[in-house]
Amino acid sequence: MKPAKKAASRVGLSPGTILHTGKRKVGKARITLIDYDESHVEERELERIEEAFPYRDEGSVTWVNIDGLHQTEIIEAIGEHYGLHPLVLEDLVNTGQRPKVEEYEGYVFIVLRMVTYDPGTHDIEDEQVSLILGKNFVISFQEREGDIFDPVRERIRNEKGRLRRSGADYLAYALMDAIVDHYFVILEGLGEMIESVEEELVTNPTVQTLQVIHTLKREMIGLRRSVWPLREILSRLQRGESPLFQQATLVYLRDVYDHTIQVIDTVESLRDMVTGMLDTYLSSISNRMNEVMKVLTIIATIFIPLSFIAGLYGMNFVNIPELQLPWGYFMALMFMAGVAVLMLLYFRWRRWL
Amino acid sequence: MKPAKKAASRVGLSPGTILHTGKRKVGKARITLIDYDESHVEERELERIEEAFPYRDEGSVTWVNIDGLHQTEIIEAIGEHYGLHPLVLEDLVNTGQRPKVEEYEGYVFIVLRMVTYDPGTHDIEDEQVSLILGKNFVISFQEREGDIFDPVRERIRNEKGRLRRSGADYLAYALMDAIVDHYFVILEGLGEMIESVEEELVTNPTVQTLQVIHTLKREMIGLRRSVWPLREILSRLQRGESPLFQQATLVYLRDVYDHTIQVIDTVESLRDMVTGMLDTYLSSISNRMNEVMKVLTIIATIFIPLSFIAGLYGMNFVNIPELQLPWGYFMALMFMAGVAVLMLLYFRWRRWL
Amino acid sequence: MKPAKKAASRVGLSPGTILHTGKRKVGKARITLIDYDESHVEERELERIEEAFPYRDEGSVTWVNIDGLHQTEIIEAIGEHYGLHPLVLEDLVNTGQRPKVEEYEGYVFIVLRMVTYDPGTHDIEDEQVSLILGKNFVISFQEREGDIFDPVRERIRNEKGRLRRSGADYLAYALMDAIVDHYFVILEGLGEMIESVEEELVTNPTVQTLQVIHTLKREMIGLRRSVWPLREILSRLQRGESPLFQQATLVYLRDVYDHTIQVIDTVESLRDMVTGMLDTYLSSISNRMNEVMKVLTIIATIFIPLSFIAGLYGMNFVNIPELQLPWGYFMALMFMAGVAVLMLLYFRWRRWL
Amino acid sequence: MKPAKKAASRVGLSPGTILHTGKRKVGKARITLIDYDESHVEERELERIEEAFPYRDEGSVTWVNIDGLHQTEIIEAIGEHYGLHPLVLEDLVNTGQRPKVEEYEGYVFIVLRMVTYDPGTHDIEDEQVSLILGKNFVISFQEREGDIFDPVRERIRNEKGRLRRSGADYLAYALMDAIVDHYFVILEGLGEMIESVEEELVTNPTVQTLQVIHTLKREMIGLRRSVWPLREILSRLQRGESPLFQQATLVYLRDVYDHTIQVIDTVESLRDMVTGMLDTYLSSISNRMNEVMKVLTIIATIFIPLSFIAGLYGMNFVNIPELQLPWGYFMALMFMAGVAVLMLLYFRWRRWL
Amino acid sequence: MKPAKKAASRVGLSPGTILHTGKRKVGKARITLIDYDESHVEERELERIEEAFPYRDEGSVTWVNIDGLHQTEIIEAIGEHYGLHPLVLEDLVNTGQRPKVEEYEGYVFIVLRMVTYDPGTHDIEDEQVSLILGKNFVISFQEREGDIFDPVRERIRNEKGRLRRSGADYLAYALMDAIVDHYFVILEGLGEMIESVEEELVTNPTVQTLQVIHTLKREMIGLRRSVWPLREILSRLQRGESPLFQQATLVYLRDVYDHTIQVIDTVESLRDMVTGMLDTYLSSISNRMNEVMKVLTIIATIFIPLSFIAGLYGMNFVNIPELQLPWGYFMALMFMAGVAVLMLLYFRWRRWL
Repeated sequence: MKPAKKAASRVGLSPGTILHTGKRKVGKARITLIDYDESHVEERELERIEEAFPYRDEGSVTWVNIDGLHQTEIIEAIGEHYGLHPLVLEDLVNTGQRPKVEEYEGYVFIVLRMVTYDPGTHDIEDEQVSLILGKNFVISFQEREGDIFDPVRERIRNEKGRLRRSGADYLAYALMDAIVDHYFVILEGLGEMIESVEEELVTNPTVQTLQVIHTLKREMIGLRRSVWPLREILSRLQRGESPLFQQATLVYLRDVYDHTIQVIDTVESLRDMVTGMLDTYLSSISNRMNEVMKVLTIIATIFIPLSFIAGLYGMNFVNIPELQLPWGYFMALMFMAGVAVLMLLYFRWRRWL
Repeated sequence: MKPAKKAASRVGLSPGTILHTGKRKVGKARITLIDYDESHVEERELERIEEAFPYRDEGSVTWVNIDGLHQTEIIEAIGEHYGLHPLVLEDLVNTGQRPKVEEYEGYVFIVLRMVTYDPGTHDIEDEQVSLILGKNFVISFQEREGDIFDPVRERIRNEKGRLRRSGADYLAYALMDAIVDHYFVILEGLGEMIESVEEELVTNPTVQTLQVIHTLKREMIGLRRSVWPLREILSRLQRGESPLFQQATLVYLRDVYDHTIQVIDTVESLRDMVTGMLDTYLSSISNRMNEVMKVLTIIATIFIPLSFIAGLYGMNFVNIPELQLPWGYFMALMFMAGVAVLMLLYFRWRRWL
Repeated sequence: MKPAKKAASRVGLSPGTILHTGKRKVGKARITLIDYDESHVEERELERIEEAFPYRDEGSVTWVNIDGLHQTEIIEAIGEHYGLHPLVLEDLVNTGQRPKVEEYEGYVFIVLRMVTYDPGTHDIEDEQVSLILGKNFVISFQEREGDIFDPVRERIRNEKGRLRRSGADYLAYALMDAIVDHYFVILEGLGEMIESVEEELVTNPTVQTLQVIHTLKREMIGLRRSVWPLREILSRLQRGESPLFQQATLVYLRDVYDHTIQVIDTVESLRDMVTGMLDTYLSSISNRMNEVMKVLTIIATIFIPLSFIAGLYGMNFVNIPELQLPWGYFMALMFMAGVAVLMLLYFRWRRWL
Repeated sequence: MKPAKKAASRVGLSPGTILHTGKRKVGKARITLIDYDESHVEERELERIEEAFPYRDEGSVTWVNIDGLHQTEIIEAIGEHYGLHPLVLEDLVNTGQRPKVEEYEGYVFIVLRMVTYDPGTHDIEDEQVSLILGKNFVISFQEREGDIFDPVRERIRNEKGRLRRSGADYLAYALMDAIVDHYFVILEGLGEMIESVEEELVTNPTVQTLQVIHTLKREMIGLRRSVWPLREILSRLQRGESPLFQQATLVYLRDVYDHTIQVIDTVESLRDMVTGMLDTYLSSISNRMNEVMKVLTIIATIFIPLSFIAGLYGMNFVNIPELQLPWGYFMALMFMAGVAVLMLLYFRWRRWL
Repeated sequence: MKPAKKAASRVGLSPGTILHTGKRKVGKARITLIDYDESHVEERELERIEEAFPYRDEGSVTWVNIDGLHQTEIIEAIGEHYGLHPLVLEDLVNTGQRPKVEEYEGYVFIVLRMVTYDPGTHDIEDEQVSLILGKNFVISFQEREGDIFDPVRERIRNEKGRLRRSGADYLAYALMDAIVDHYFVILEGLGEMIESVEEELVTNPTVQTLQVIHTLKREMIGLRRSVWPLREILSRLQRGESPLFQQATLVYLRDVYDHTIQVIDTVESLRDMVTGMLDTYLSSISNRMNEVMKVLTIIATIFIPLSFIAGLYGMNFVNIPELQLPWGYFMALMFMAGVAVLMLLYFRWRRWL
């Protein structure tokens, strides 16, 4: 989540320059095409993007999905064929964009961020997913291959599904829905993570726990940054500002919008929990420390008067009557024991022990 | 209050899929029907939801209440008969919704959250209550049986009540009012809880107190999240945006709106109190610790000079004149006592004791 | 300031039920009437509210003031005669309302909160004051007898005053002004209180000081809650939304509005001061503690090396040359004194003393 | 900055009562008049305000400045002659107003607050400056004599200045500009103050430093309160809502507006610095304390084992072989020295020293 | 970043006074001119600004860049020739302006702030860059020579670039884009700085680290202040409010706007990181301190009971049986060793070591 770095390498370039700034995430871009209407489905894996162009003019809905953005010639070919604005092409490959929606003549450009969570390293990575929605086509771009759109493909294959009977706008909705839904999976993982850290906090907090908490906090902030603009986008889309989205689809967009609000709520809840954990950690560490210091101080406090008594009878005065008593030593020992016991009882009474 | 978990199990499903995500809270869904107008009341408990359908076309107001959402066939039947949108059906059973109001052709869909408080475990549970308000019917959905709507039923039975003379919109208002009023009960319970914890804080704060405070804080945050959208909903409804609510009912909606604001005010007050308690706890714990350390250090500080004096006369120099005095030992003891008393006086004078 | 409790006893009641929820604050409601125009003033104390009704239709301005809300029959009679909405009657007696203004056909209903401060217990109590403003009458309701409106009465008796020449809307303004002005008295008292606590903080902070600070903080929050909605009300009124307020009166309402802003500013300032006091208290307590610990530790630190020297010459080696010196003991004493003085000088040089 | 006190003495008064609530700041109000147009300037000091009235009807711009508000007869005379609203007169003398702008028929009433800083006591005092802008006159009111408007007078005397060629609205702008510019002087003083305190923080923080920081913080909050409404005023004026301000003057008002924003920015920056200083103070105090405690504890820790060794050879067992060695004492001394050196090395290695 | 100081020296001056308030940053102002259209480019370095004026009336785009603002005669000449408002001239040289955009008859005045970061001193300096955009000319002003606009010059020289085919508005966009892009470079530097400080925090936090963190925090706040108004400016420009910006350029302005949002996001992220570092620093310092105190206290705690035992056998009672045992001394030593080992084991078991 360091957009600064990515973008810095672009400084001074002319706008519209197509230079991929993300890491090269796959070997070769993978292009898949699904063309469907109520009566047929055609799924193909394409070698060259140009094979997709003839589908454009048919009445059916065409969905082209591109995994991998480093082959800028593909992006350029798409840009030329579909008449995309140079800035759109730039944003497609410059993968540090904030989620946004931009309307152009004849198409809508939607940038979303998809998050993935690695439970091993507690790392949340996010990836840019862009959609181009045209009259009867959707082109989706991912930085690397993923299975996030598989349920949508499954629903297209299902002849009875609403997806088959609806237009490209509904497909775009379904893809956005898939991305938003994926946040719930991430949040669930994070929630479990947080619960296990909470348990650790109670049983055995270490410096590592603190670092995990700090990592979680930072990731919460990162997540928040990528979810809040999503809310804004969906709010705008569901108000029906774009003519490409039909009236009947708007209610579905409102549904995704509601989900986004839920995601935000959950992120905020988790953030509150993490903040609370930080407080708990600090106060538990300080409690432990205090406990240690208290016990040690009590030990010292008990022995200091005893040592004083011993010192007393170590004095070399010529006339110390007690020293001459045959049982003096044992009486002194018992006196010391008595002092120690009284102090312990006092400490216990004061609830210091 | 973990919406993330509930929703995660739905990821990838087609929108409009009716799959109940809450816990199965009752054995069999309970369906009750009340049909009334100014002149008659009819109360029935239905075996099958279909028995309710014929009431629809009469001029009287029909209220169907369903406790238990796991029998999705009931939801589906209602959806079909009343022409509900698939997303409404989905939201009915997917019980992690935020409070919201959605207007559809011919009906309004209202989602509220009802909270219940268990004083034993200090747990606040919340439950989704949904209302469908049509021209002359209201359908209400609860996750489990409850007595929250009993006062409303009582008022319907009362021939003189305003409820009997009014339409379905007033019934919907009465149900929302019952839910908002219930928050006051919860808040009263929480208020008492907080007061008792406050007392505990003063008399004997323990680690358990801290945990109760943290639980309370989290519940306050949860409550806040479920009350704030309520405010928004009622604000919209009372502005009269929906044609289903008659002008005369709007003033009542404004009244519920005022109550919601009061609930929010109270939640914020309690939250402030809980935050204050956390501060008090931390400073009282640290005060206690400081007190302990101070007393212990004072004991050590008094004995260290005394031990030094004893050590002095334990030295083996050939010529220590005091050692030869017959009353030397007693003079030394008295000198030590004097030093101790002087130090104690000094400490008291400095207000360290 | 516990609106939750008051309202909880009302849960489940039909809206418009007239049930007084406050404490019964006076024995019998006291009803006073002032009827005036430019040429005459008539002041009466009424036995029964019905005696006030004939004044309504005269051209003069009629002000009915009712102290005590527990005699609901009075409220009901007023409601019937003046045609008040049931919810207005409910809000009149249900004295936990937020300040608000509601416009109805033919009258405006204004709810304000008046605060009184008891310097003995440092308690701020607030009381609901409601106004009904009609075409040529004002009805005011207080929970108990008070002298807050006396200056207004005095101004009515004054033949030359603007009040006599103006309508009922100006009277309503004058009453609101009296209530807002009363906040300044409260704030002055609180300000003095805070200053005296601040002095205490510097001279001798105790645990009681902390509790007073916490009480003040909570009262500040309470005051804030009752003043902020006031601002909103006056903002709306001064924009001239209600036809009952004449153009010439609006500028006076703007003046009250300005006063409300001043009250808010003062409350915020005092709140900042209280927050600052809390910080000062904590750091001063911790400073005192540190001071104690430092001095004690220094005492111990000085004696520990001295004790070591004494212990050295308490060893029983056969050959310790110093022990045989006739002046050895005195030289040892002087050496110890030297060590002590050097350490003290060092501590002073390091500014630890 | 205690508006509450000032206003409290006014409670219960009829609105429009002209009672000066500030301290009586000058012996006798001083009235100066400048009448100018492009071709002439006339400067006079007036004995009686009535001498100013004839200038009103001439075409030239008349600026009457009154220093001192306790002679309410002057205010009353102005009010009568210029037809000012009673509330304007009240606000003129009741000098605890927030900055505001109010438009009346034929004139605009502007209240500003001017701040002065006393570097000796670190006190910021603020004073109310009011302006009445009419068609071709400006009347300005200050609580006491000051030199803040001298540069404006100088510019009027300058025949070539834009001021001479412009109307009364430009004069009002020039006066406001002078007041806003004065904030920069205050802020510069405060900035230097803060820098010197920051240096003190690094070299020798004392309890006095803390108090200075708290004073600064409070003054920042006070400044903020008096600057923020200024912004609002100027924002409204520069939008050209008042017909008394000509189009050509608006761009100058925008310039003052920009300056106000700069003042706010600077106040916020300084506030951040002060907040940071508080943190630094606390952590530096705690660092110093820790440093002391650490060194003292290290001293004790080194001598405690040494004392133990000495104690060992002070034991009276019949058979302690070491005691019989002729060089035993010296070996013991060297052993102790070795232990001490090793401990010191260890502490240094652990970077505790 | 001390605008207060700069501006204070201007107090009392007539508006429109051209007095350069920044440091004199270059010896002699450097004036460069580029005149271009699709078919030609002409680059010149001018001796006198008057040489630029004839280019104005040609159809080509003219870009005049002035490095150094202390030669006010240049500014005045430009002002006269291009008919700039006196306040614009004042703002050009008074280099403490906030970023802003102001529209005048025939030209737009844009003030931006350019930041530069010195990695040696960790100082961020900012500099005012102003643009005047007219119908077919752009005049840019920088406080000193810099290479920030070099890539734009390069793109102008490139015959195929979009810049050559577009008007002056696109040039203004390109310049703004260059400035915004430069923020990314700064942020990257800061990001690396923060990472290295973070590492230092983990390995060896010192007081210097704290100061670096505080410096970073303050710089973050400064950056924030200079970026936020930028956002506002670009938001206004991209909405197309100014007729000087053509429709086709607006989409590019939206792109810069997006970049600004990214800059803000990054600044906020870094700010969060710095805040987190502060917390980490404080808790790590306190951890270290606690660690030290704990170990030292443990050492003392172990030796205090041992010293007591030694003291015991140093007592001079006539009858202490152990003293007479030939192996008594060695048994005592072993007993002491046993006590020490047991205590160490206990401490380890309690995880105090």
